[in-house]
Order: sequence, then C-alpha cells, then structure tokens
Amino acid sequence: MIANNLEAYRTHCQARLESALDDLLPRVNVQPVRLHEAMRYSVLGGGKRIRPLLTYATGAALDIPAARLDRPACAIEFIHAYSLIHDDLPAMDDDDLRRGRPTCHRAFDEATAILAGDALQTLAFQALAEAGDLDPRIRVAMIEQLARASGSRGMVGGQALDLEAEGKQLNVTMLEHIHIHKTGALIRAAVQMGILADPAINPDHAERLDRYAKCLGLAFQIQDDVLDVEGETAAIGKTAGRDQVLDKATYPSLVGLAAAKEMVSDLTAQALTAIAIFPAGAEPLRWIAGALEGRKS
Amino acid sequence: MIANNLEAYRTHCQARLESALDDLLPRVNVQPVRLHEAMRYSVLGGGKRIRPLLTYATGAALDIPAARLDRPACAIEFIHAYSLIHDDLPAMDDDDLRRGRPTCHRAFDEATAILAGDALQTLAFQALAEAGDLDPRIRVAMIEQLARASGSRGMVGGQALDLEAEGKQLNVTMLEHIHIHKTGALIRAAVQMGILADPAINPDHAERLDRYAKCLGLAFQIQDDVLDVEGETAAIGKTAGRDQVLDKATYPSLVGLAAAKEMVSDLTAQALTAIAIFPAGAEPLRWIAGALEGRKS
Repeated sequence: MIANNLEAYRTHCQARLESALDDLLPRVNVQPVRLHEAMRYSVLGGGKRIRPLLTYATGAALDIPAARLDRPACAIEFIHAYSLIHDDLPAMDDDDLRRGRPTCHRAFDEATAILAGDALQTLAFQALAEAGDLDPRIRVAMIEQLARASGSRGMVGGQALDLEAEGKQLNVTMLEHIHIHKTGALIRAAVQMGILADPAINPDHAERLDRYAKCLGLAFQIQDDVLDVEGETAAIGKTAGRDQVLDKATYPSLVGLAAAKEMVSDLTAQALTAIAIFPAGAEPLRWIAGALEGRKS
Repeated sequence: MIANNLEAYRTHCQARLESALDDLLPRVNVQPVRLHEAMRYSVLGGGKRIRPLLTYATGAALDIPAARLDRPACAIEFIHAYSLIHDDLPAMDDDDLRRGRPTCHRAFDEATAILAGDALQTLAFQALAEAGDLDPRIRVAMIEQLARASGSRGMVGGQALDLEAEGKQLNVTMLEHIHIHKTGALIRAAVQMGILADPAINPDHAERLDRYAKCLGLAFQIQDDVLDVEGETAAIGKTAGRDQVLDKATYPSLVGLAAAKEMVSDLTAQALTAIAIFPAGAEPLRWIAGALEGRKS
C-alpha cells in the first residue's frame, strides 16, 4: 500500500516498523531486565526513522512487499540506535540529550549503555539471519552489506576519523570523507537492503538507487550541520550549537552557511535526477528527498 | 591433519588461526589507522585461543576440513576479543592488564577502545557472511547461533548480570546462571560452529558435542575463579586477586576452594563421557578437556 503523500506514507511505515522493532526487542520481563530496558528505551524512543523509511521506500520503488523488508528495516535501525548510544558516551561526544530525552548512559549508567549498544548491534545481525521469508543467499548478502557499511571501514571508521579530527584544521574533502563513512554508509545500506531484496533487479536501476542514496546521505549530513547552527535545541532534540562547542569542522564553518545550504539543494536535485526514470512507485523516495531538504529537525 | 598430541595440535591450529585472523583484520595502512591498530593489537595480542581451538577440534571429530572452519573460528575469536576490550573499560571492570599487556583503552584511549570493540563485533559477522566455501544456509545458521550466544540473552546478558551482582549476595545457582551466559554461551557457540559445518550430522552426535561444550564451559569458568585465588599475575596475564578486590562472588568464595576444584574435575569427567563414543578424531576434544582442567593460566 502506498499512501498518497509523505505524511501518510511515513505514518504507515512507522506503524509497521514500531511493531516489528517491538517484536524483535527482548521483553523487559526477561533477564537481564535493566539491559533490556535500556535497549528498548534507546530504540523505541522516537527518532525520525529515516533509514528504515528509505528501506521501505526503495522496496516500494521495486514493488517488493513491505513485509519482506520489516527485518532489514529493523536491522538498520538497531545499528543506528547502537551507534547513537556509543557516540553519546562520555569518552566519545559526551552528550546528555538525544531525541529530546536523556541519553542512554544518563538514563541508565555507562556500563549498561555500552552493553545495550553492543547487544543492539548483535540483534541487528540476528534479525537478518532469522528473516525466514528471505532466501538465505539474500540474508547473507544483506548481512555482508550491513557489516561493511557499519564496520571499521564504514560507520565506525567515520566515527573514529571524526574523533581524530576534533580541534584539527580540515578541508571540505576531508570533512566529506568523514561524513561519507560516518553517516553516508548506513543511509546507503538502508537503500541497499531494498535493492538486495530484489535479486532480479536491473543493474542500471540498482546503480541509480545507490546514486540516489549517496547524494541523499551527504545532503542529510550537511543539513544536520546547518541545523546545528540554525536550529533550536527543542526542535532538533539534541543540544544546538554543540559542534561549535566541540570545535568540530562543519560545512557551515568551512564554506559558509549559504554555500552549505546550496550544497544541500544541489545534492537533493542530483538524487532526484538519479531516480527520475522510475515510475510512480518511487514517489516515496522523491517525497523523502524533498522532505529532508526542507527539514527543521 | 591431526598431530599426535595437544601441543602439536594446538601449534598447528594456532598457525592456521593467526594467519586467518591476520588476513581478515584490516591493515594498519588503511584509514582509520589508529582504529585498525587497536583492533589488531587486541586480537593478535596472544591469548589462549581456546574457543577457536574448540571449533577446529569439533571439526576434527566430524571429519570436516579445517579450511572450512577458519572463518567461523576467527568470528568466535573476534567476538571474544571485542568482549574483552569492552569488559576492561573504566565503566566496566576497569582493568589495566590483559594477556600480560596494557588493555586496549590503556594502550590507546577509551574512545578508540569502544570503537575497536564495536568494529570487531561487526567483523565477526562479516567474516561469516563472506565465508564463500560454506553454503549460504550454513552461514546464516552460524550467524544466528553466534548472535544468540553473544547477545543480550547470551554473553552480553551475562556481563550485565555480572555487573548487577557486584557487591550483592549470590548463591551458587545465581553464579552459575551468570557464567552460563557470560562465558559458557560463547564456548558452546565455538563447538556449534563445528557442528553446523556438518549439515548431515547425526542428531545424537550433535547433542553429545553440545553437552561436552556445556560442561567444559562451566568447568572453564570455575577454573578461572580458582586461578584468580591461586594463580600469579605473571602466569594468568591479568591482575590476580581481582575478584576479591571487586568483591565479586566466585565459586571458591561460595563453596570453598577444594569443592570448586572438585566441580572442575566432575564437569570435565562429564564432558569426556559425553564424547566417549567418538573415535580417534575426537582426540583433540579430549586433549583440550584434560588441558583445561590442569591449566595454570
């Protein structure tokens, strides 16, 4: 079912996703209770759900039943949630606020937060391995893709580069290199989950969807930097102006706010061009690109 | 090839394993350099390699070519290495010494240690997903097994229970519950990797090997507790007497040293009985059980 606008589509997908996440997460009456509470707190605590939305929307463009993408969408979100928990730790970004609520180590404690992150990563791979409605070859390909996107040469590598860069002079190429890994890799993987669910996909279509994801991922991060300057803490759900406090290089700090906004527009246009040949099923992907460009949070 | 005694067999397996681990770990000339150095430091820094040895030895009992078990053995060791890095963190056990060398966060820094652990977990699942010489169904089964053994209801859950238990009064049942999860689950998974590599395995044989692993896993942990009391820091490669400092319940503290040693003997005997029907191929499994019982480190 594809609703006739982004809000309806988002609501529809989020309902699917929340239910699937809830099913996959261990109950809080199962030992160890506190660990399971921390996992549920971090995953079910809202969030924009952009990555799973991209997985479902890619599936819609390729006519794949949404049910086949529930577990891949959850796996992506588990990885994202684990990375946020660990990034917020005192030894990392040391942040108190996430999605408008105390971060996991503030709401629980540091040890529990480390373990909750660890267990969510594990759960991501378990959810894919146990995706009974997908052929084992597809499951293996998804696990490989997700691991590559999130490991030391993907998301975690980007986080390591980001930490190394704090307080250092960066140029735009270096900053882009960090973001392609830190944020871009997982956004690309979200679209790849949809692509991999269709083993008969036309290679040109796969390449176009991947290009869409690459452009969108970078636009997303630049927009994040813009919002850190322009946004308000209440709207973005984390501490505004944090990048400046941490003396982090950002697009606005390197190229100026106006140029950064222009980059977001250009990349969004490129993303839309890449998937222009797709018929109506790709509307959700187009809606998402438009909404991310205009987002305030 | 099965050598004619444990030392030769161990040397043979360790050479295979070190080479496979080295192949799978990212090079230190690949960005992010420091992260990759920390990963290699933690994995290639020695260790008894008991879990991968069990994987190879189970394979020997089932006549499975060792080459098919290289990646499963590495995956188990990556999970083990990641768990040690995170367990040693200041927010967890706060330990300075591991395998006779500074712990990862001491040798590098806390943020790098968190990320190195994260990336090693990812690499474990990637190594299995990309095990090209195993049927995708086997790979998926191994990934599922490893995830279950290491997640919130396995190893990480055991670590959470262990942290919760610090300074509390425990009985033997509760302590066993912790150890079955914290250490036992991954040791069982190591044997399961061998079992899963043989899809045609006789179910009775599979059940016997699993029973062997269960008994061995518990014996191993009790022996660890005994060594923490009796061993010397230099021999065990970590700070002796640490459990007492942390006010942790251990078998010697609950049942006494002599009774704890007797439990190790009984469990080892049970492990050996479980696999008594296996012919000569199971010699390595028998050697390992004997050696673990008598180990000094």
